[in-house]
Amino acid sequence: MTITITAFERSPDGGKGLARDTRVRWALEEVGQPYEVRLVSFRAMKEPAHLALHPFGQIPTYEEGDLGLFETGAIVFHIAERHAGLLPEDANARARAITWMFAALNTVEPPILELGNARILESDKPWSNERLPLVEDRVRNRLKQLSARLGDAEWLDGAFSAGDLMMVSVLLRLKSSGILNEFPNLAAYVARGEARPAYKRAFDAQAAINTGKPPTG
Amino acid sequence: MTITITAFERSPDGGKGLARDTRVRWALEEVGQPYEVRLVSFRAMKEPAHLALHPFGQIPTYEEGDLGLFETGAIVFHIAERHAGLLPEDANARARAITWMFAALNTVEPPILELGNARILESDKPWSNERLPLVEDRVRNRLKQLSARLGDAEWLDGAFSAGDLMMVSVLLRLKSSGILNEFPNLAAYVARGEARPAYKRAFDAQAAINTGKPPTG
Repeated sequence: MTITITAFERSPDGGKGLARDTRVRWALEEVGQPYEVRLVSFRAMKEPAHLALHPFGQIPTYEEGDLGLFETGAIVFHIAERHAGLLPEDANARARAITWMFAALNTVEPPILELGNARILESDKPWSNERLPLVEDRVRNRLKQLSARLGDAEWLDGAFSAGDLMMVSVLLRLKSSGILNEFPNLAAYVARGEARPAYKRAFDAQAAINTGKPPTG
Repeated sequence: MTITITAFERSPDGGKGLARDTRVRWALEEVGQPYEVRLVSFRAMKEPAHLALHPFGQIPTYEEGDLGLFETGAIVFHIAERHAGLLPEDANARARAITWMFAALNTVEPPILELGNARILESDKPWSNERLPLVEDRVRNRLKQLSARLGDAEWLDGAFSAGDLMMVSVLLRLKSSGILNEFPNLAAYVARGEARPAYKRAFDAQAAINTGKPPTG
C-alpha cells in the first residue's frame, strides 16, 4: 500500500528542514519505505477536507490504505513499530526508546516552542527584549539536564532509535538561537543525526520543494 | 513483579490531582494493576539517585523488575500496551488512539504549559497583565479545533482509550482558568473522564497523600 504524507506547499522556514514533515520523511528513509507527498497550502490546511484528516489543521499527516493519522510523534511511532530500524527488539530497550520519543516531545520541545513564540510571535511586543532571556533560560535548564544524561554517548540509549530521531529533530529548532552550541556534546549529537544518510535524503527532499533545488542524493 | 511509581512528597497543587503521577495512577487503575508509590521530596528529585531514573529530575517514574521508565506519556503507553483496557485491539483504531496521546502531549499541552508559566512564573512581571490574553488565545485556538473534532461524541475516537486519558488529564490543567468552560462539550468530556471510577480512585489516592484525607473509595 502506498504511503502518502502531507507537507507545506511553501514551508515557513524556506526549506531549512524544520517543518515537521522532515521528521516523518527521516523515519521513512531510516526504514527504507518509499512514500508520496501531497503538498498543502496554508489556506487548504484550514479547510474541511484537510481538517477531516488533521483536526488541528497542520502538517504532516500519514495515509496508508484506510488508515489516516496525524501528529508527528504518532506517525513516527507507527512507522517505527511496523518496520525494523527505529526501535530495539529487546522489550525493555524498546520501552526506553519510546520514553525518549515522549521526552523529546513533551519535556524538551515545549520550552523550545515557547522560545519560538517569544522570538517570532512576540518580537514586536514591548516586553520582548526583557523577557527573552527568561525564556531562553527555561530551554537551557532542560538542555543542561539532557547534556548531563547524554555525556559522551553517541546516542541516548544504545543504538540510534526513534527516540534519537525525535530528540535531534527537536534540538535542530535551536540551531539559529546559538543556545545549542553552549552544550558541545548536544551540538555534536545533533550533527551526528544530521550526518545520517537517511536524514540527508529527508532534508534534501523537503529542500527540493521549498528552494526549487533538486535533491543532491 | 511489583510496579513502583514515584510521586511528590508534597505536590505543588496541594492535592488537586494535577501532578503527573495522577495520570499514571489513573492508567494503572483503568487496567486494574496494583502499584506502590515512593514519595520524593523536591530536594531528592535533583539528587543523583533520582536523576539516574529521571534525567529531568521530575516525577513520575515507573519501576518494574529491571525496567525503569520516566516520562508520563511513555509510562502510560507502556501500561496500555501490556494490559487490556486502554488501547483498542483493531490495529488502525489502536494507531488512532496513540495519535491522540501524542496530540494531547505535543499539540494541546504546550500552549497550556505556556499559560501556566505566564500565570505562575511571570505573574510578577511588568508585562504580565498585557501578555496573558495573548497566551490564553493560543490555548483557545487549540481548544476550538479540539471542540470541533469532538462534537457530540463521548470520547475522541470510539471507546475510551489512553488517548482520552491523556487529553482529559491535559485539559484538567485549564479548570482554574475558566477557559475550559467556554467550550461546553470539552468541559462535559473532562467531566466524563473525572466520573470514571478509575479516575476517582487515582485522584483519591494522590489526595490522601497531599491533604492527609484518607481515600473515600
